[in-house]
Amino acid sequence: MSEDRNDEQNDTGGSNAMWGGRFAEGPSAIMREINASIPFDKALWRQDIAASKAHVAMLAAQGIVTEDDAGTISRGLDTVAAEYEAQGVPEDWDLEDIHMTTESRLAELIGPAAGRLHTARSRNDQVATDFRLWVRETIDQVDAGLVALQRALVTRAGEHAGSVMPGFTHLQTAQPVTLGHHLMAYYEMIRRDRSRFADARARLNECPLGSAALAGTGFPIDRQATCDALGFDRPTANSLDAVSDRDFALDYLQAAAQCALHLSRLAEEMILWASQPFGFIRMPDTLSTGSSIMPQKKNPDAAELVRGHAGRIVGCLTALMVTMKGLPLAYSKDMQDDKPPVFEAAGLLALSIAATTGMVADSTFDTARMRAAAEMGFATATDLADWLVREADIPFREAHHITGAAVKLAEERGVALDKLALEELQAIDQRIGEGVFAALSVDASVAARASYGGTAPDQVSDRVAEARKALGME
Amino acid sequence: MSEDRNDEQNDTGGSNAMWGGRFAEGPSAIMREINASIPFDKALWRQDIAASKAHVAMLAAQGIVTEDDAGTISRGLDTVAAEYEAQGVPEDWDLEDIHMTTESRLAELIGPAAGRLHTARSRNDQVATDFRLWVRETIDQVDAGLVALQRALVTRAGEHAGSVMPGFTHLQTAQPVTLGHHLMAYYEMIRRDRSRFADARARLNECPLGSAALAGTGFPIDRQATCDALGFDRPTANSLDAVSDRDFALDYLQAAAQCALHLSRLAEEMILWASQPFGFIRMPDTLSTGSSIMPQKKNPDAAELVRGHAGRIVGCLTALMVTMKGLPLAYSKDMQDDKPPVFEAAGLLALSIAATTGMVADSTFDTARMRAAAEMGFATATDLADWLVREADIPFREAHHITGAAVKLAEERGVALDKLALEELQAIDQRIGEGVFAALSVDASVAARASYGGTAPDQVSDRVAEARKALGME
Amino acid sequence: MSEDRNDEQNDTGGSNAMWGGRFAEGPSAIMREINASIPFDKALWRQDIAASKAHVAMLAAQGIVTEDDAGTISRGLDTVAAEYEAQGVPEDWDLEDIHMTTESRLAELIGPAAGRLHTARSRNDQVATDFRLWVRETIDQVDAGLVALQRALVTRAGEHAGSVMPGFTHLQTAQPVTLGHHLMAYYEMIRRDRSRFADARARLNECPLGSAALAGTGFPIDRQATCDALGFDRPTANSLDAVSDRDFALDYLQAAAQCALHLSRLAEEMILWASQPFGFIRMPDTLSTGSSIMPQKKNPDAAELVRGHAGRIVGCLTALMVTMKGLPLAYSKDMQDDKPPVFEAAGLLALSIAATTGMVADSTFDTARMRAAAEMGFATATDLADWLVREADIPFREAHHITGAAVKLAEERGVALDKLALEELQAIDQRIGEGVFAALSVDASVAARASYGGTAPDQVSDRVAEARKALGME
Amino acid sequence: MSEDRNDEQNDTGGSNAMWGGRFAEGPSAIMREINASIPFDKALWRQDIAASKAHVAMLAAQGIVTEDDAGTISRGLDTVAAEYEAQGVPEDWDLEDIHMTTESRLAELIGPAAGRLHTARSRNDQVATDFRLWVRETIDQVDAGLVALQRALVTRAGEHAGSVMPGFTHLQTAQPVTLGHHLMAYYEMIRRDRSRFADARARLNECPLGSAALAGTGFPIDRQATCDALGFDRPTANSLDAVSDRDFALDYLQAAAQCALHLSRLAEEMILWASQPFGFIRMPDTLSTGSSIMPQKKNPDAAELVRGHAGRIVGCLTALMVTMKGLPLAYSKDMQDDKPPVFEAAGLLALSIAATTGMVADSTFDTARMRAAAEMGFATATDLADWLVREADIPFREAHHITGAAVKLAEERGVALDKLALEELQAIDQRIGEGVFAALSVDASVAARASYGGTAPDQVSDRVAEARKALGME
Repeated sequence: MSEDRNDEQNDTGGSNAMWGGRFAEGPSAIMREINASIPFDKALWRQDIAASKAHVAMLAAQGIVTEDDAGTISRGLDTVAAEYEAQGVPEDWDLEDIHMTTESRLAELIGPAAGRLHTARSRNDQVATDFRLWVRETIDQVDAGLVALQRALVTRAGEHAGSVMPGFTHLQTAQPVTLGHHLMAYYEMIRRDRSRFADARARLNECPLGSAALAGTGFPIDRQATCDALGFDRPTANSLDAVSDRDFALDYLQAAAQCALHLSRLAEEMILWASQPFGFIRMPDTLSTGSSIMPQKKNPDAAELVRGHAGRIVGCLTALMVTMKGLPLAYSKDMQDDKPPVFEAAGLLALSIAATTGMVADSTFDTARMRAAAEMGFATATDLADWLVREADIPFREAHHITGAAVKLAEERGVALDKLALEELQAIDQRIGEGVFAALSVDASVAARASYGGTAPDQVSDRVAEARKALGME
Repeated sequence: MSEDRNDEQNDTGGSNAMWGGRFAEGPSAIMREINASIPFDKALWRQDIAASKAHVAMLAAQGIVTEDDAGTISRGLDTVAAEYEAQGVPEDWDLEDIHMTTESRLAELIGPAAGRLHTARSRNDQVATDFRLWVRETIDQVDAGLVALQRALVTRAGEHAGSVMPGFTHLQTAQPVTLGHHLMAYYEMIRRDRSRFADARARLNECPLGSAALAGTGFPIDRQATCDALGFDRPTANSLDAVSDRDFALDYLQAAAQCALHLSRLAEEMILWASQPFGFIRMPDTLSTGSSIMPQKKNPDAAELVRGHAGRIVGCLTALMVTMKGLPLAYSKDMQDDKPPVFEAAGLLALSIAATTGMVADSTFDTARMRAAAEMGFATATDLADWLVREADIPFREAHHITGAAVKLAEERGVALDKLALEELQAIDQRIGEGVFAALSVDASVAARASYGGTAPDQVSDRVAEARKALGME
Repeated sequence: MSEDRNDEQNDTGGSNAMWGGRFAEGPSAIMREINASIPFDKALWRQDIAASKAHVAMLAAQGIVTEDDAGTISRGLDTVAAEYEAQGVPEDWDLEDIHMTTESRLAELIGPAAGRLHTARSRNDQVATDFRLWVRETIDQVDAGLVALQRALVTRAGEHAGSVMPGFTHLQTAQPVTLGHHLMAYYEMIRRDRSRFADARARLNECPLGSAALAGTGFPIDRQATCDALGFDRPTANSLDAVSDRDFALDYLQAAAQCALHLSRLAEEMILWASQPFGFIRMPDTLSTGSSIMPQKKNPDAAELVRGHAGRIVGCLTALMVTMKGLPLAYSKDMQDDKPPVFEAAGLLALSIAATTGMVADSTFDTARMRAAAEMGFATATDLADWLVREADIPFREAHHITGAAVKLAEERGVALDKLALEELQAIDQRIGEGVFAALSVDASVAARASYGGTAPDQVSDRVAEARKALGME
Repeated sequence: MSEDRNDEQNDTGGSNAMWGGRFAEGPSAIMREINASIPFDKALWRQDIAASKAHVAMLAAQGIVTEDDAGTISRGLDTVAAEYEAQGVPEDWDLEDIHMTTESRLAELIGPAAGRLHTARSRNDQVATDFRLWVRETIDQVDAGLVALQRALVTRAGEHAGSVMPGFTHLQTAQPVTLGHHLMAYYEMIRRDRSRFADARARLNECPLGSAALAGTGFPIDRQATCDALGFDRPTANSLDAVSDRDFALDYLQAAAQCALHLSRLAEEMILWASQPFGFIRMPDTLSTGSSIMPQKKNPDAAELVRGHAGRIVGCLTALMVTMKGLPLAYSKDMQDDKPPVFEAAGLLALSIAATTGMVADSTFDTARMRAAAEMGFATATDLADWLVREADIPFREAHHITGAAVKLAEERGVALDKLALEELQAIDQRIGEGVFAALSVDASVAARASYGGTAPDQVSDRVAEARKALGME
């Protein structure tokens, strides 16, 4: 090699002079800071200890370390765990990450035998294992939170299976619906979210431990044993993939982003409903705040934060997708940037679910005002059109046209559709009969929509009953 | 109302004067262009015809329209379909979308009976149904493409189960691996992709038809019948949700984005491998191009485009997530922006999968050059450390340290590890014995890594055999 | 080389058998489709012709080609341009892109002299030049559209400088504001958007032509001459950067995304205002649509599409960011994926701006209903607090507390603040005097907020006057 | 109102029972956690104190508070600042944010006079002011970091103005370039980044203070005075916009994302160059790490982290764009989610710039190996084509074809182009003369490309000299 070393040494001097402030020490200070993952990956300490214990037990069972050494290591790990539990995980950037932090403390506690723990593994498969365990546990917690939200939705939907409100499309009054029906729409969304998290969990539940750095190991390990000990379904089938793969984190983030988008929609509706012009809902005081300047304010802060958090969770997903794009196999250090987005999203989502559950459970619905709004806006115009199809055998397109004329007349007259006189309606189309008025009330309208999944109170009650059963609420 | 109409009329005049160029006609020209979805949703025509035929058959079976009318409508729809097949779908922006385009043509063909087709449905449930059918079919096509890619990977992996190449972490030579093992890592990624698409398919396969505008319908429809006719698993359980939900599109896009990220990683590797410094691979001529200025160039364009397309597919996912964020129920017109990202992603992904399959199937691997690269870079240093642990019972951490000294010596001497003399090694640590040399060849190294999922040729052959069976290749 | 060619030839046979449907021909069909950019880059034809004419004129002036050849080429390019204008650009995928399409047609028209056009350039600098010219023109068009929008905003703001409406924070009634003030907030946002586009334009306006493939050229070209001919400010200073850089496209997309976010906020407000519970606005019929099922509906489709398009434009930005991430220098084919997101965003943004301008110009504001809403919700509570500070010298925090008690009383009594009796107020705090009532009307409230940039009608009128002057509307 | 209060009270009981773990207290615990911004907005304490001091000084100057009170408040704020400096900012979630935390401490220190500080302002304009100040300072710090990086680039480029390396397009050897030229490409990118940050700074530098909650204030404030005191260019012109606007944060994030993408490209190249097959560069030890399992490894961790961080910074931008999408005016609590992405991006970007500067300054280039690589791969084929155009007056397209044949022959013969015999070349085309050989060396090739911005050493030296001058390095 003919490296231009002379130049380089001068450069080094030069560069050191360049750093001010935080990096006055020069590149090594930068490296310590950019390289250290311990400030965030200490969150993995429980998983790291558990995986190490499973690993060393297997090493002993396979005769790769002695039972004595294994016992010493395992008890040492318990001590480290107890210390972490009591005092937190120390953050020494020179120890880089949770794995080195733990191993270093173990060595202090038990001496050189600690060095046998890392036999037949690498930080690459170790972190892949730890992080999968963490995500799996988070998914389980999310699912519990979503069940609580579903229960709140189902409870309120059951109370309001017959409460009439305006249904909107394009945020224009469309047709009367029931509040129970509206709430059950979110039950369905959360049901899909739960299935998405469940799919993600099933897909992640393969154990990478034993993949070592990238190529597997020559030690006679028993991957099925560590897999079983840690509750995985099977060992991963390819060691290169196992240490390079972060699909499980992306699967989690994608499910989280989708869930957050659902919550953002409900939050948007609650904010609308709590506004003075709507006035459909009164948020619980516990989930509202006042203003530093306007004494009359009661702001739906929790709902706004849920809506805002959707943005950040989508950002977390984007972050990891961009980071993973175009990375060659196997492990690259870029992948250390997998954890902050997942940890951030998990915290925001847990709070968002809890806050939403609280708002659903504890908000007060102003059902009188909802009903009054449903009675405005000609929300039963479709019922007139449907009546014409059904009773007068008029093709729907023509019925739609006739109804348009009736709405126009009512609008000009400033009255509701069912306040037009029969003669007025018949002047528009003589096939309209007395019976039509029974179809034009909001109660008749919702009761009529009894098709499966429709807004009729009976339909809603049936759906609620099924949901309660599915949620074990009976 | 006390609207300031006088002002407004002046304004209108004013605003018309403001529009130049494309919009010289004023707002109505803008509206025609921004509102029309026919330029892209015409892609749904097959699904729209199929859903309409299922709907009208059900209406007749339920006695909501006569059998005669239903027959006329159904035959008319067949005629429209034949016209579309032969001449394409006409793009009349005033007819807005594929639904109105088809209904309008139907009315020309069969007269007013056409107006009965839209009984008990709305464009809201119609488009939700059509789009689900389209995405479902796309998923089935993606799966077929991914099977072809897996077969190509498995075939090449089988050929190269024993071909040694350098395994990289951090793009630094790490340990020798086999090319077959490396290719099988992508087999695993695609396996997960397929399971993700399958999960998405299962979740989307509920039929929204019959949800009408948002509230269900008062006509005595049979939702199970249309559901069955269209191959769905069950009708959607909540009509408000059914017309407001685009989870199925997001599920597809998320699976597509994840798959594209995998393909981007393989593309990156192929680009690296095809570079002169690596020289591991020769791309097929059919998937390369030349340069307009540099006569010697043979560029891996297909791989670069696959890598680039990952960006656009991630962009499609982002687009729909942002669009859906914070939308109140039920249908909002924003949701019309669901289709362009899905259509774009589907086209890009199909091409990416096909191009990748071609590159995998038809590239020439320079196995001699791969082996030579594996023999450089002290790739078997870990084997020395492992030998010390195994044969001399030294704790791994200490063995790691001893090996570091050996690497340093070999580097200074400019030779490979296994070209150091035994005495030189023993000068570092006297516990090193003659037997170590058998462990230091690249062939010995890969053969040793026989843990489940490891890079040993036998392991790779076993995994290939299982994969061939799973793919029906035996 | 010891390539395993025998295997490969069998593979090729095998892979051909694998392709069905669209790619039945095998990899070459895939390549033709994935590689061809002519379906979208034909949009660059005007820029491509202009740059080629500037290039050949410079080549002649420098004596690199003869004046005769240059004349023949230039006239030939004019003929090609005329053909494109009349008949469109032909889409022959085998000619790949607009550059080869044009050069190929030129060769048919003028023979071998066409081959001299590509002297001292490459497609890499050619496309970089063309695309910059295209983006520059688009920016100029966007600016014209934004000026029209600003004029509409300013016009309506001038009409409504004194129209009182509720100002919201957290979508809760906060304080009365004027509609003119509200509209002028968007004037400010658009002002920033224009400055962002102007910054992007200034930064892009460097000419890459003459950078050739990546290294510059040995021909004695005059880069300043082509730079001047094409209206650039200066030639790019580094040829490697010039062909690898897509900052100008990202700058455009970032400005477009920010602008779209602003439009999404105005769209959201218009949708809210047009809803029945608000009823603040009536959208122009030209920018609304009806429903296929609900005869009474008038939907704010244009506003919803503007809001939805923000999602797609953000998606376009994301797409190009992801594509560019981690690309080594110089040109990589991934960068061909730069144009579809830019073209898509440009189309969506132009429509969004035009539609928003139409909605601002032609909507009818129901000022009576706005005023009525402002008079509800205790919007002048802050005025009471401010009065206490100003007139009774009470620290603001204490005044805030007193006012809270007054609001509570008014709420319980179901009356507006200024309908409480003086005695009732004095029972809360005896320092409240008769004068307070003058402060509690919505007109007094807005008139009082005369700080610079405040909502007072005089302030709004001043800002409108300044804006009209800046826009050349006087 | 006819609220269903009875139901609600039962619900509340019910919901409390639902919360476990962290939220056992029920909704109020959730609210405290989701609502508190003090954990992150305490980073604004310096800005908050500065803005409060400017505000109270103005209030006194305008006679809105007495000089005495103002003095007390100002001295109190100094005390609070001293406490924060010494002990950090206390994190009491019940005090919500940095504004309340500071005001609360101030009240403890000086009593009720503290309540006068909040006269004529709101947290809405306060946080907008604080955050602008913070972003402005961050931009100034980024610029300083980018100057250091430019200096490192320019220094190394000056050293290597004549060092030949292969230039790549499509990662295929294209033409020889100089390392100095390559490094100066990044100088140009950073130059654009600096101009982008400067544009962002200019656009943000308007003072929102005095906009109060949303409508301005009735107190006779002097906005120019606070504006001047805080170093802003002018007060914002619209109070509604001023409290609703986060363009400045998005401008910062967009500039940061663009800069991070540039750094990701350089990082990718350094990772490639440090790989064994390339071997162009040796990273400084200070910015590399070893492996826990493979003793020979020296990993380019810093470069990988820089590349990975680009993903997270893009994620931060996406987060805030999604959060802002579709928010109605004025302030919504969603906007509290503006700070975490900005703070995160700022930290990651600062580290990325510093690490990149260290790698540029302190890496060792193996110029012999670079030159050797440039001499392979027929990198001077374009020079042969150019020679034919220039010396034999052959149209470029034909020259390209002839050169292709020469490359094919050299490839078959396994020699470099300039190692073919003249007769062999003349057998391809008899117009090739002896003089051609002078054009085919890599030194001749780079020297020839002396067009402005080209790779010729003289060109590079000129550009370096200009850059040194611009950077004040002379």
